[in-house]
Amino acid sequence: MKYISLLGATGSIGRQTADIVREHPGQFKIVAMSAGKNIGLARQYIEEFQPEFVSVQLREDYQTLKSEYSSKGITFTYGDEGLAEAAVHDKAEILVNAVMGSVGLYPTLEAIRAKKDIAIANKETLVTAGHLVIEEAKKAGVKLLPVDSEHSAIFQALQGERKKNIERLIITASGGSFRDRTREELKEVTVAEALNHPNWSMGAKITIDSASMMNKGLEVIEAHWLFDLPYEKIDVLLHKESIIHSMVEFHDSSVMAQLGTPDMRVPIQYALTYPDRLPLSSSKRLNLAEAGKLHFLEMDFARFPCLQYAYDAGKTGGTMPTVLNAANEAAVAGFLAGRITFLEIEAIIKKALANHTAIPIPDLQIIREVDIETRQFVNTFMK
Amino acid sequence: MKYISLLGATGSIGRQTADIVREHPGQFKIVAMSAGKNIGLARQYIEEFQPEFVSVQLREDYQTLKSEYSSKGITFTYGDEGLAEAAVHDKAEILVNAVMGSVGLYPTLEAIRAKKDIAIANKETLVTAGHLVIEEAKKAGVKLLPVDSEHSAIFQALQGERKKNIERLIITASGGSFRDRTREELKEVTVAEALNHPNWSMGAKITIDSASMMNKGLEVIEAHWLFDLPYEKIDVLLHKESIIHSMVEFHDSSVMAQLGTPDMRVPIQYALTYPDRLPLSSSKRLNLAEAGKLHFLEMDFARFPCLQYAYDAGKTGGTMPTVLNAANEAAVAGFLAGRITFLEIEAIIKKALANHTAIPIPDLQIIREVDIETRQFVNTFMK
Repeated sequence: MKYISLLGATGSIGRQTADIVREHPGQFKIVAMSAGKNIGLARQYIEEFQPEFVSVQLREDYQTLKSEYSSKGITFTYGDEGLAEAAVHDKAEILVNAVMGSVGLYPTLEAIRAKKDIAIANKETLVTAGHLVIEEAKKAGVKLLPVDSEHSAIFQALQGERKKNIERLIITASGGSFRDRTREELKEVTVAEALNHPNWSMGAKITIDSASMMNKGLEVIEAHWLFDLPYEKIDVLLHKESIIHSMVEFHDSSVMAQLGTPDMRVPIQYALTYPDRLPLSSSKRLNLAEAGKLHFLEMDFARFPCLQYAYDAGKTGGTMPTVLNAANEAAVAGFLAGRITFLEIEAIIKKALANHTAIPIPDLQIIREVDIETRQFVNTFMK
Repeated sequence: MKYISLLGATGSIGRQTADIVREHPGQFKIVAMSAGKNIGLARQYIEEFQPEFVSVQLREDYQTLKSEYSSKGITFTYGDEGLAEAAVHDKAEILVNAVMGSVGLYPTLEAIRAKKDIAIANKETLVTAGHLVIEEAKKAGVKLLPVDSEHSAIFQALQGERKKNIERLIITASGGSFRDRTREELKEVTVAEALNHPNWSMGAKITIDSASMMNKGLEVIEAHWLFDLPYEKIDVLLHKESIIHSMVEFHDSSVMAQLGTPDMRVPIQYALTYPDRLPLSSSKRLNLAEAGKLHFLEMDFARFPCLQYAYDAGKTGGTMPTVLNAANEAAVAGFLAGRITFLEIEAIIKKALANHTAIPIPDLQIIREVDIETRQFVNTFMK
């Protein structure tokens, strides 16, 4: 039995993690969880999984739940502090960090220091402060297990292999909601169109990031930290079917790939069962004959400038990826709220990066300040 | 430095093994070799690689070489006995068995007993006597390292994985020289047409086996033995580009695949360096964007009956795969000599299988007798 602390339980990755726990009741138990504002679903999980510790975002929801479940012996709390407390729950062996955005950073660092393994679905954590997370994980001797399908694919392809033999990583990109549109056609796109991803059903923020290709940029930076490779050894390839989830090329020219139907439960479960696997009978099997064809295309950096910004910010290093991430989070929130257009996301990120001079090897305090300053800067462009 | 005994040095796999030794002179040394009738190339290898032991097929070639190189301190010999002696050469740590046909069986068994690891390119050995080879390898504690691109792909995909988690193997098939022809169109095909494989440059026998799909059938049986899986867990998928070399599906629905340009040196080298890899700078890198598309199609057993015969013979077991292999070797030799038509290969194999009652768990003596009887039976159909 593996005891799990699940942050972001009611989000897309959180719900799929719950699915896996449900499918393997003898293998996994959610001992601690955090939820945002979806208190209806939080209630359902409290009753179904009977966690010992529950943190919610808002004080009023905390008070409601606390009085509703007063006889159950559950500890309730709320806010950022509650999130960090859930992350380090005594009984938890592994933290599934599925919260959205850089808010996931602090609880991740706390959990690492408390010697929990980390199933990391929150890529913003690594983008914004990769060097701190990796350093702490090494110091604590805990595992960082990727949950993103691309990084899980690379992680699986690296099993039994030696790092020195890696020639490059090849991260595949579906192209997102607008892959078949020209830049001219992007001028008038709506939020609803951007949220209509062709392959994957995901949260709103990551779906917008997919449409802008920033998601792939964040993944490149995440891969840099997770697999300790220079950006020159990380490539991106357009592959519209999202069936090959990513690849590793070795210096003997052999390429190892992980494939499957688009189902986030597979990488989530792999992070929980690693280095073993468990059956996942509810997952649709890959049938390549039914798919018929797989397509591949060079990445077009002029069409998708956010990817270029990410490579540039990653190579610059220091606080530059923090700015990239904070500017993107704020701009995407602005787009989802109808305050800027889709193409303004890119334009604003570009301005935020140009406005910043990178501070090398920043500590957590500097990262937080740069994060806040960047969001303030971005908000001056909002209608 | 790894010391190699190379059987079948002047054949297609032998020449590509020589290429790898040439590319890594500090890593590998050919200490013993066997050659067939290509004495010109054998001479070249003797001078280039300076082996200590050389066996050739014919007595007269043996005598010629022995007198030519009398001052070099090389031991020369010939025939089947010479082949077996080369296989067990004192200094050799690994045997690369790249001879063609079931003649590879006896030297393989001898080398296993002499505790040599085996890089097995000679699939007929496993088809004709898989249970004996596997049993001896287990007893001796030696490694059987696949050299066929498909089995090497599966072997690579299994690194770091657990056998209990395998759902099935997916062996890819290019379809061979005649993949786009109907059975009607196969009636008049010539030897030259059959030898024109679209993707791979290989020896004559295996190229004909690819056209008849018997090669894939032999590979299914080989996979059964190498990976210890029932035939129900081994599937074949048409994939005309030969870029995905084969795959393993696990019970969590994750599929691991090995990809690359068609270059046999990659799996040969992997067998020699396993579990490590070495650079292979002369190999063309895979460029999926350049390939653009990969195609997949269900296997059509009516179009390719030899594959069905192989599954059936494998499932029956005992001496039935010996008959399948011997009948195929004799029939392909007959086709290459112009004594039967392409479609008669299938018809004759079918007759040989129908004519035989399987003997369960045969020893080497029975296998040899059945092999000889089958060839005699097949020869009665030759013009």
